[in-house]
Amino acid sequence: MTDDRVDGRTLRYRHRRPELLAAATEYVLDHGIDGVSLRPVATALGVSHATLLRHFKSKDELLLCVGDKIRGDFVRSWQQDEQFSTASSSAELVRMVWTRLCEPREQRQFILLFQLVGRAARRPADAQALAPSIVDDWLTPIEERLCADGWPADEARTLATLVLGHIRGLQLDLLLTGDRARVDAAFDAAIAMMHSPHGS
Amino acid sequence: MTDDRVDGRTLRYRHRRPELLAAATEYVLDHGIDGVSLRPVATALGVSHATLLRHFKSKDELLLCVGDKIRGDFVRSWQQDEQFSTASSSAELVRMVWTRLCEPREQRQFILLFQLVGRAARRPADAQALAPSIVDDWLTPIEERLCADGWPADEARTLATLVLGHIRGLQLDLLLTGDRARVDAAFDAAIAMMHSPHGS
Repeated sequence: MTDDRVDGRTLRYRHRRPELLAAATEYVLDHGIDGVSLRPVATALGVSHATLLRHFKSKDELLLCVGDKIRGDFVRSWQQDEQFSTASSSAELVRMVWTRLCEPREQRQFILLFQLVGRAARRPADAQALAPSIVDDWLTPIEERLCADGWPADEARTLATLVLGHIRGLQLDLLLTGDRARVDAAFDAAIAMMHSPHGS
Repeated sequence: MTDDRVDGRTLRYRHRRPELLAAATEYVLDHGIDGVSLRPVATALGVSHATLLRHFKSKDELLLCVGDKIRGDFVRSWQQDEQFSTASSSAELVRMVWTRLCEPREQRQFILLFQLVGRAARRPADAQALAPSIVDDWLTPIEERLCADGWPADEARTLATLVLGHIRGLQLDLLLTGDRARVDAAFDAAIAMMHSPHGS
């Protein structure tokens, strides 16, 4: 994807990129980004530092690719998984997605999210570099689904922003308190808005 | 507050605690927690490491105190500031609070929040230690205000959870994208729920 240089070594390792990215993603989700550098990731993945470098030029590039992979996998799951295909409305789909996201395995992505934002938000250039993969690229599939369900485009964008904000703000709460009943009640109150275009 | 030992040195420095905490809070808001340890904070504050240690036994204790101070100062501002006293409803107050929180100076607290959560959420004991100051202690004053405005207690707790989640999730978006118009529209859609007990 980001690898434009084609030479012998690149070709030799090219087919391994998806496999390396999948393993690196699990590593970062399990370990977070504090102190992550390419060398220990390579060791954990059982490849040489040079091999990893051929695919991901830097730690920052690896983290961007990891973020894209998490989003890509998750969006595909709600668009294609049999479980989610039974949802009869955007609100019901969002509720199903929320339930999936509350599983500890999925919650790891929010810890990573807060770490990435905490690291980048102080430097405008870093924040700008992260914004597409952390905000815009998530909004688009949510908007598309809302529009398919009959929401006007401008309201769909507002609502997508709100849904994404809900999920992240309430996951922050849940990660610290573990108070699923209270947080679920708040989430349900939030998606009640999705049943009518104006929420009141 | 947390200093139960009273001896000569403690007494001598006791009156400096509020002043040290205020300076340490600004330092942490400006620099974040990555690599923060008591020694550089002491240097920045112009006191000895030993003096700072007398007031804050560890980096973690200092960070908890900083979190409490940020919350205490902010809650006092919405309870006592003249600007906020003109709000005629909880919804209007929350909108005013949001506008204040979007000022870059106030936004620093969200960067710190995401850093703290990103650091603690992976270890259950750390998450549990942070939960009161990051969630419960914020919910209480919001709930109290909602109850004073006529919301039933159980709905007030749900709504307080949701308001806190909104603010944090949408600040995450705003910190990265700077897209104030889109995020403000989402915030306005969210507080539209606060005008009736059931949001629909």
